[in-house]
Amino acid sequence: MPQQLSIGLFGFGSVGSGIYHVLKKKPSPEIQLKTIVVKNKDKPRSIDSSQFSYAAEDILEDEDINVVLELIDDADAAFHIVKQALIQKKHVVSANKKMLAEHFEELITLAQKQNVSLLYEAAVCGSIPVIRTLEESFGYDALTALKSISNGTSNYVLTRLFQNPQPFEEIITDAQNHGFAESDPTLDIDGWDTKFKLILKNYHGFGVLHAPEDILNLGIRHVKPEDIEFAREKDLSIKLIGHSRMEDRRLETYVAPQFIPTSEAITGIDFENNAVQIDAEFAHQHLLQGKGAGSIPTASAVLSDLVSLLKGYAYPYSKVRKGIPEPESQTPEVVFDPEKLIKVYISSYAREDLEPFRFKERILCGTQKQLQYKIGKLTLDHLKEQVKHSNAEVFIAVFPD
Amino acid sequence: MPQQLSIGLFGFGSVGSGIYHVLKKKPSPEIQLKTIVVKNKDKPRSIDSSQFSYAAEDILEDEDINVVLELIDDADAAFHIVKQALIQKKHVVSANKKMLAEHFEELITLAQKQNVSLLYEAAVCGSIPVIRTLEESFGYDALTALKSISNGTSNYVLTRLFQNPQPFEEIITDAQNHGFAESDPTLDIDGWDTKFKLILKNYHGFGVLHAPEDILNLGIRHVKPEDIEFAREKDLSIKLIGHSRMEDRRLETYVAPQFIPTSEAITGIDFENNAVQIDAEFAHQHLLQGKGAGSIPTASAVLSDLVSLLKGYAYPYSKVRKGIPEPESQTPEVVFDPEKLIKVYISSYAREDLEPFRFKERILCGTQKQLQYKIGKLTLDHLKEQVKHSNAEVFIAVFPD
Ligand SMILES: NC(=O)c1ccc[n+]([C@@H]2O[C@H](COP(=O)([O-])OP(=O)(O)OC[C@H]3O[C@@H](n4cnc5c(N)ncnc54)[C@H](OP(=O)(O)O)[C@@H]3O)[C@@H](O)[C@H]2O)c1
Ligand SMILES: NC(=O)c1ccc[n+]([C@@H]2O[C@H](COP(=O)([O-])OP(=O)(O)OC[C@H]3O[C@@H](n4cnc5c(N)ncnc54)[C@H](OP(=O)(O)O)[C@@H]3O)[C@@H](O)[C@H]2O)c1
Repeated sequence: MPQQLSIGLFGFGSVGSGIYHVLKKKPSPEIQLKTIVVKNKDKPRSIDSSQFSYAAEDILEDEDINVVLELIDDADAAFHIVKQALIQKKHVVSANKKMLAEHFEELITLAQKQNVSLLYEAAVCGSIPVIRTLEESFGYDALTALKSISNGTSNYVLTRLFQNPQPFEEIITDAQNHGFAESDPTLDIDGWDTKFKLILKNYHGFGVLHAPEDILNLGIRHVKPEDIEFAREKDLSIKLIGHSRMEDRRLETYVAPQFIPTSEAITGIDFENNAVQIDAEFAHQHLLQGKGAGSIPTASAVLSDLVSLLKGYAYPYSKVRKGIPEPESQTPEVVFDPEKLIKVYISSYAREDLEPFRFKERILCGTQKQLQYKIGKLTLDHLKEQVKHSNAEVFIAVFPD
Repeated sequence: MPQQLSIGLFGFGSVGSGIYHVLKKKPSPEIQLKTIVVKNKDKPRSIDSSQFSYAAEDILEDEDINVVLELIDDADAAFHIVKQALIQKKHVVSANKKMLAEHFEELITLAQKQNVSLLYEAAVCGSIPVIRTLEESFGYDALTALKSISNGTSNYVLTRLFQNPQPFEEIITDAQNHGFAESDPTLDIDGWDTKFKLILKNYHGFGVLHAPEDILNLGIRHVKPEDIEFAREKDLSIKLIGHSRMEDRRLETYVAPQFIPTSEAITGIDFENNAVQIDAEFAHQHLLQGKGAGSIPTASAVLSDLVSLLKGYAYPYSKVRKGIPEPESQTPEVVFDPEKLIKVYISSYAREDLEPFRFKERILCGTQKQLQYKIGKLTLDHLKEQVKHSNAEVFIAVFPD
């Protein structure tokens, strides 16, 4: 258990500079920021350029540094940095959900082997203490479902669309102009970011690990004003949801827009806010909401992990059954029941776009002004297949039963 | 760190029997329920009477038993039991907020001295992991405010009143008939229960400890249909709130009904549900909501504490500055700024009832049908004084600025 943290910080963007400013405003005798490594020598900085290094070795090979904060935006470089840091027996705090989701097992195993902590509360819903709660609370209970709004950009866009239905291109441009969307918003609006976070939550909440390519992610890129109007007329909201449900020891999990009755509390989560709804067998339903991103709130979560390091904390991964011998009947299946049907809504302005999508149970066809839609049931595997083979601009969303 | 928990359970009421049933449904090799002590020999039980003891010694003097679950409804007897258990070096899990709030310092000190854990997540908002979150998250941050709906009975009553304004006596009788209120609802509706929970939260969230008699608690007993109508006309809700706000290193804290704009998420917490709103300097605002009570959800929280015991967990009380030498300027004042004004609404059918209440700043007088009300500002100390000397049936609520 380290008495003093000597920090090597990678990245001085939104989160990295937030860390710097919080530590400046509120210094701690136990936490010393020693070295900051960034990438671009010519970038103008808000603090003196003498404070920066540009070589990863300046942190990774410094024996004084016992903690690496990985706060960069390049997942491949981040993986290399984190791996090297763990090999050097440095503790690591990261906010990089993409990097973590892609290399989860390898990094966790390495950290355990090296007897150091790898913490990443900030990677999932910013300053909402999601990972910690999944890991340390409801400890005798069994989670039955997780439902999260974990991408601020998508939720901001959907909130604005419900205030004023308009074409998606217009709203995304507006969101970019207001700093609520990246210049390339793909990771956000197509559900990738939500999926990376879902993978981390599924591991801590259910002890189940998926590779990113094994989970379907549908996004909001093709939502149209008429979809919004359709929802509003039926007292439904549309939210981009990271969804997991444990049923008969099988985990159903995907990322997709969902139509949700406005009576459900989670539909009240607006704009860039995030929320995680936790259902447990005995404790029933809980909702944690708060700031899912932002320079200072995310920095607060990263610094909270540093305080945990000072207490010697490492995630116990207590839900992970792997390696623990258990009677056959108690081992949860990690695979989703391939026969289970989910109810989906598919819409497009062009009827022929809907053709390739085949339901196992057809429920309804309809129109909303110029928009054609159909609702029916099919298996998750079939939906995945059909999405893969369609390149039409259809909007697909899960519909309530 | 115990490898095996041998449990002595005090109480087989709502929560105690919940524990029994969860352990029956989902047994654990590490957790064995050894002895159950109750009070009343003649009470019909849902399980065989041979399973009960009636002497506290059967648990307290059993050297095999290393954990006591204190789940009785008598705070004085509970204090005696918990104290004896700690003296015997047994870990204790309790759900008794009244007993804890009244003897907090003594019990915590004793547990630390005896090197055992005293855990009580279930005592504050049932299965919402409030204490754990205040203790382990936002660790580098500084809380600026806590605002809680923590009494299910009061919130149930207020929710029903907003659905259909009616005299308080009618709604409380109805709540009693539906099992949502005790036959003596005083602790709930007069804000005592909320205050006990507030004391525990203030200690874990701000490191500040108050005795129950030092905190003002106003309840909802005198709320009238016209108060509800007044609120509704102004898009306000009324919630019974455990309130704390840290400002300039001084903690303002009280229990009172508050008028809250319906745009605030916490007003969406309905019926018997609970919620805790946490404001922090860097992480901004978070809201945790869920089941604040109920046999099985509360049992889930108690059992979650048992799982924590198996990991060797004890609350670190990391916000408690006491005993830790700190520069004078950094020590937070635990006393509230005596000059600070709060804005309150006071109403009654009889104008003379309002007379004894004097504002420092008068803002508004008005009527709502037969109801007389006035709104103004005064200090918390003055309000406390005036409440003490009034026995009129006035409804007092904090009004938004
Ligand atoms: N922003 C949020 O609110 C938020 C919330 C939760 C999680 N996160 C995660 O936190 C991480 C950082 O996000 P951000 O928003 O702070 O990113 P950002 O503003 O784009 O900043 C990225 C920083 O990484 C640096 N960098 C990139 N490649 C590097 C390399 N190979 N070596 C050293 N430095 C490198 C950049 O250096 P230059 O300055 O030289 O370009 C820049 O300082 C990401 O994983 C993100 O997903 C962000
Ligand atoms: N109910 C909830 O949802 C909830 C939620 C959070 C916290 N809590 C707290 O949990 C505690 C228990 O609540 P509850 O609702 O389960 O109470 P309850 O239903 O009224 O049951 C109380 C139990 O305590 C036993 N008891 C009373 N005095 C005793 C003594 N001196 N020695 C041994 N047993 C004694 C009673 O014995 P007999 O059966 O012989 O009468 C009964 O079994 C209270 O502190 C309460 O505030 C309750």
